[in-house]
Order: sequence, then structure tokens, then C-alpha cells
Amino acid sequence: MTKTLHYTIDLEIPFHDVDMMEIVWHGHYAKYFEIARCALLDTINYNYPQMRDSGYAWPVIDLRIRYAKPASFRQIITVRAEIVEWENRLKINYLITDKQSGARLTKGYSIQVAVDMATQQMCFASPAVLLEKLGIL
Amino acid sequence: MTKTLHYTIDLEIPFHDVDMMEIVWHGHYAKYFEIARCALLDTINYNYPQMRDSGYAWPVIDLRIRYAKPASFRQIITVRAEIVEWENRLKINYLITDKQSGARLTKGYSIQVAVDMATQQMCFASPAVLLEKLGIL
Amino acid sequence: MTKTLHYTIDLEIPFHDVDMMEIVWHGHYAKYFEIARCALLDTINYNYPQMRDSGYAWPVIDLRIRYAKPASFRQIITVRAEIVEWENRLKINYLITDKQSGARLTKGYSIQVAVDMATQQMCFASPAVLLEKLGIL
Amino acid sequence: MTKTLHYTIDLEIPFHDVDMMEIVWHGHYAKYFEIARCALLDTINYNYPQMRDSGYAWPVIDLRIRYAKPASFRQIITVRAEIVEWENRLKINYLITDKQSGARLTKGYSIQVAVDMATQQMCFASPAVLLEKLGIL
Repeated sequence: MTKTLHYTIDLEIPFHDVDMMEIVWHGHYAKYFEIARCALLDTINYNYPQMRDSGYAWPVIDLRIRYAKPASFRQIITVRAEIVEWENRLKINYLITDKQSGARLTKGYSIQVAVDMATQQMCFASPAVLLEKLGIL
Repeated sequence: MTKTLHYTIDLEIPFHDVDMMEIVWHGHYAKYFEIARCALLDTINYNYPQMRDSGYAWPVIDLRIRYAKPASFRQIITVRAEIVEWENRLKINYLITDKQSGARLTKGYSIQVAVDMATQQMCFASPAVLLEKLGIL
Repeated sequence: MTKTLHYTIDLEIPFHDVDMMEIVWHGHYAKYFEIARCALLDTINYNYPQMRDSGYAWPVIDLRIRYAKPASFRQIITVRAEIVEWENRLKINYLITDKQSGARLTKGYSIQVAVDMATQQMCFASPAVLLEKLGIL
Repeated sequence: MTKTLHYTIDLEIPFHDVDMMEIVWHGHYAKYFEIARCALLDTINYNYPQMRDSGYAWPVIDLRIRYAKPASFRQIITVRAEIVEWENRLKINYLITDKQSGARLTKGYSIQVAVDMATQQMCFASPAVLLEKLGIL
């Protein structure tokens, strides 16, 4: 695969995501990652509904979030998601920056594996449908 | 139906429900209502899974929340849910009080109607299964 | 006040807002209302931070949400917020429609009252600052 | 410190935490971790309010969650939090198991560092107040 698979979105921090320390509560970043991930998966036409239609669930099995700087109410953040592994599992890296200054706020990754919905078995290699969607097969 | 259908639970306000004004963000009360509602529906063995198994979805069509006093981090609240209508729709009233003082914090209601999952049609009267679960039929 | 105070935003339903009935969980609409409300309050420069700077908190004391049709994952919804009362309290009406078809999905309102942060007393009339921001004084 | 610092709580999975794949949405585990963490910090009287009163914020700078098995609506889970580092940062490990079977569902950790609220500087060693609360100083 020579093409780079990434996608970038902008988000404005809503009031209901900010905690009493006046910063975004750390758990909400899983949502920001997901919004960028789904937008990225839409570009290859393999978002959650298509995953399910293909007979595979793709649960997240590992999530990591590293916080360098906090974000606050009404701040515009840029969330970049990039597919970095796909052969045996789907690993996506994330980078969140402040839209205005470009300052790095948060980074992390998620790892998903295919589960055959008929047998409920985890797949040790990614099914062909992912590689087709990625344009490799 | 002569028996009164109500149920009461206690909850401790978690950190992630508190906003930058240092009170519970108003939208989270829908969760507190739901936790009490599901505990109540468990007592008649007609919670979401049994609803679905009976062929009916019961979407909320009306929700009202009135806030008298705020709640804050680590406060213990008591949530009381009571079924007050069931013939044509399922109306549940809620009352949230401070566990220690008994002070009234929030009240509200939810209204749900049966939707036949086979036809996707809304039912104008509650299906027999609800009345059976309530011990009326 | 002859000018109409309303504001409209578009939102895409994220995966994490959808429940096991495959529709948006009803409590999440409080977030959609809030995002439109804050965007509206930004237009008069009297959003939460300016409220606090002016010495008043504006807690929501009443919230109502009426659901006509469900929304689902990746659906684009349009949320319209309109200020309809301001003299003694701030009442905002909301209307959510499907962006593509224009079908009405949800409507509701929120009512907020001013609380003097110095005395913690609720104000029985809206403070002058709100009327100034609205261009009435 | 010879004593082991851990705390265990039970939680019932609420309806609003379950996604359209009929399992708990992966991002909600940050809440379960936090509820156990706050209960643990309460035992040493150094939860968020006491942290702030002591002049330090303790933002989470690293969060990792590894998912072995999913959890579903109404499942009772046991969340164990244990302080495993405290000298330079506060690292807490988490283990979530099914209450009934004891099966391991999820594990992870959070890392927090002290930030002096007066100077907004990150502390390279934990302030004395943490060690006092832990009974080491």
C-alpha cells in the first residue's frame, strides 16, 4: 500500500465535555478519536455498518491516550487519524492539535481486531474485505 | 391495579458528571432517571431485553426534567421512579432528593409508547404483555 | 425586540450516541440542544464564560424534549435554537430536523434563570446585562 | 510503604453505556476506572477536592485500556483500582472482572502528575501532601 490513509477533522469543545477543573475530562478524548476514526473509515467505505454487513465486528481491544496539554470550552481542536497497521489488526494513530496555534495537545492509538460474527471467533489475520477496502487486494 | 409500582435507588455523583460550574451538568439527569427506571422495570421483569423479546420497542417520546437545586461531586442522591400511567402509554414520574437531608433536588417524568417491531407502527393502546407484567391481566 | 434571535447548526450523529436499539439514546439530545444554544449565545456574546464574568450563573431549571422520530448513526441533523423569552427568564425553543428530508425529529425547550453568584440568590427578573446583550437596553 | 493500596467496587452496566453492537462502548471504561479511582482516593482522603485544596491539580497524562472480553447491559462488573507508583507520579492499575464468574474483562492504568496550581508548573516529584496522605511521610 503506497497511499497514506489518514483523515483530519476539526471539532469545537462543547460545554458538557468540560469538568470542574475547567478542562476537557480526560475520558472524552475517546469520543474525539472515534469521530475522526469513523470519518477515516468512511473514506474507504468500511465504517461500522459496512463492517457488520461484511460479517465482522471490529471491537477495540487496546486504547491509549497520552495528554500533553489540556483543552478548554470553545477551543477548536484538530484530530488526525491515520491507519498504521492493517495486516493482522487495525491500528490507528491519533494526534490532536490546537487548530489556531498547532500546539500538540493529545496523542494516542486504538487497536481493533476482526471477530467473525458467525463463530464469535477472533481472526488472527485481517479478513480479505479490509484489504480490499484499503485497495491492497 | 391496587399495588403501587415504584422503586428507589441511591447514586453517588461521579466526577465526570460535574461541569465547570461545579454542579452536575443538567443533561446527566436523564441517566439517573434511566437507572431508576430500569431497576423498576426489572421488578416486573419487563426491562429493555424483555421488551424486545416481546416484540415491542418502547421508545421515550417525552422527557421532562425540572431542577430545583443542583447536585455536586460525591453527593449521594436518592432517585425514586414510579409508574403512573400504563393503559395507553408508560408514564413514569421521578423524584430526586438528597439522601442525607431529604431536600428535593429534581423531578420529572418520561413517557414511552409501544412500537410493534414487526410493523414499526406505534400502538395506540399498551400491548397485553405490559398489563400482564404489571399483574393487571 | 423586533429582531428574531435564532441560530441553526448541523451535526452528524456519532457512533457513541447510538444505543442497542440502533437509535440515538434519548438523553443525548440535551447535548445537541446545548451545542445549538451555545452557538446562539455566542452570537450575542453571552455564552457561559461571559455569563460568569457578568456575575451571574444561568442554570437550566426546566428541560423538555419531545421525540417524534428517532435518529441513527451517521444521520445529519439540523438543530435550530431560538430565544423566545428573556424578560424574567431565558427560554429557548429547539427544533431538530433531518437535514436531507427536512422531517421533524425532535423538539423541546430549555428554561434558564439568572442566579447572582455573589449572593446565590435567584433573580426574579433577568439582569440588565442580558437585555443589553440582546440589544434591548 | 508496606501496606497495599487498593479498592474494589461493583457496578451494574446501565442501558445508556451499551452501543449498537450490544456491548459497552469502549470509551465508557474511563468512567468505570474513575469511579474506582475516586473511591480509592477517598480512603486516603485525597480525592479531587482535597487535591485542589492542597494547591495541586492532578491531571491524567496517560490512560491505557486493554479489552479482553466485552460487557453487556445489566452485567455486574467488579472494578479493582490499585496505586502502584507514587514517588514521581501517581500510577493506578485497574482490573475489571465479571462479578459472577470472575472472568477478566478489561485492564488498564492511569498516570497522573501533580501540577502546582499557583505556577501551573508540572512537578517532577510528587508533593509531600501525597506521601503524607499515603502514610509514608
